[in-house]
Amino acid sequence: MKEFVLFSSRGFTLPFDLNDLTQGRMDLVARCISAAFFISYAIRKDVIFHLFLNGPPNPPRRISFYGNELVGIEPNEKSIAIKLNECLEKGKGLKLSEEIKVGNGIFIAKESLEKFLKREAKNKKIVYLHRDGVDLRKYEFPENFIVILGDHKGLPEKIEKFLERLNAKKVSLGKIEYLASHCIVILHNELDRRS
Amino acid sequence: MKEFVLFSSRGFTLPFDLNDLTQGRMDLVARCISAAFFISYAIRKDVIFHLFLNGPPNPPRRISFYGNELVGIEPNEKSIAIKLNECLEKGKGLKLSEEIKVGNGIFIAKESLEKFLKREAKNKKIVYLHRDGVDLRKYEFPENFIVILGDHKGLPEKIEKFLERLNAKKVSLGKIEYLASHCIVILHNELDRRS
Repeated sequence: MKEFVLFSSRGFTLPFDLNDLTQGRMDLVARCISAAFFISYAIRKDVIFHLFLNGPPNPPRRISFYGNELVGIEPNEKSIAIKLNECLEKGKGLKLSEEIKVGNGIFIAKESLEKFLKREAKNKKIVYLHRDGVDLRKYEFPENFIVILGDHKGLPEKIEKFLERLNAKKVSLGKIEYLASHCIVILHNELDRRS
Repeated sequence: MKEFVLFSSRGFTLPFDLNDLTQGRMDLVARCISAAFFISYAIRKDVIFHLFLNGPPNPPRRISFYGNELVGIEPNEKSIAIKLNECLEKGKGLKLSEEIKVGNGIFIAKESLEKFLKREAKNKKIVYLHRDGVDLRKYEFPENFIVILGDHKGLPEKIEKFLERLNAKKVSLGKIEYLASHCIVILHNELDRRS
């Protein structure tokens, strides 16, 4: 299983305007989901993707996608944005820590990244991308891991410090700072080659 | 210099509907351009991208982007689609083999892929992605090369045969068939690591 987290600092937490996905950088969010799940004519069933939205007006929200059950999404930004809006609409009245099912393989919860990671770090290795990390091609991934990605602003210092306390592993993709969605593609390719 | 070609079998050759980029798979086209040029907060100046559109109503069209002059585009699908429409509008009345400048680093021409490749193959190695090719990580790219990519339908048999006659090199990304845009990301990452 390959598990990804995207921390979106400004991503909307209520339905947003589908005609301008650059607001709140929902375009970036959509591309990451596309990169996590899509190969040619198929969805990667061995992927889980957790999106943490921390923008206005109602943070935090976690939207989780499970590849083994996911249907009816396409790799384009707008199709994914429509699905996110459906989630945010259904998740309007969520109470703290509550999670509801939106559709096949899609859930929305009111949960912060810190709370989520505290729980998940008990039995999974937390990995995040950092220029000072070990080279991706040399890193031996354990059986259970979650890769944490930041948006265009990167991970906030507070989250990075939290990751250090969880003994998270820094992994490097080299000197270039890639778009978050491209980081996912590069990670997938490396893991595909090994399997 | 890294040079890419995308052969789009159905991509529109006159301005198209920006509200549904899946028609003619202009979403796929836009993602490829995004993958070719964008890294975090920057455009790759050492990239040239040639898009060959062969869909209705007015094929063929070549739109060429030069990273060293490119300004005013963003990585999201819609922003790129708007730019493509601007090109197609300006290229409405083109005669065969005519090329005009649309904006900084962007040109449109009425030219087929075959005609383009015949000219370019004289001083550049033509490379295309194929499962039976040499492993990307083992291939020594020459100084001047062009990587040819197909859309969701792959490259037509006629084009593949043409590539063989040009003594094009088959390069493999492994067993997985990736989205065209993801192929570009993987190629870039391999070349980034070497430079």
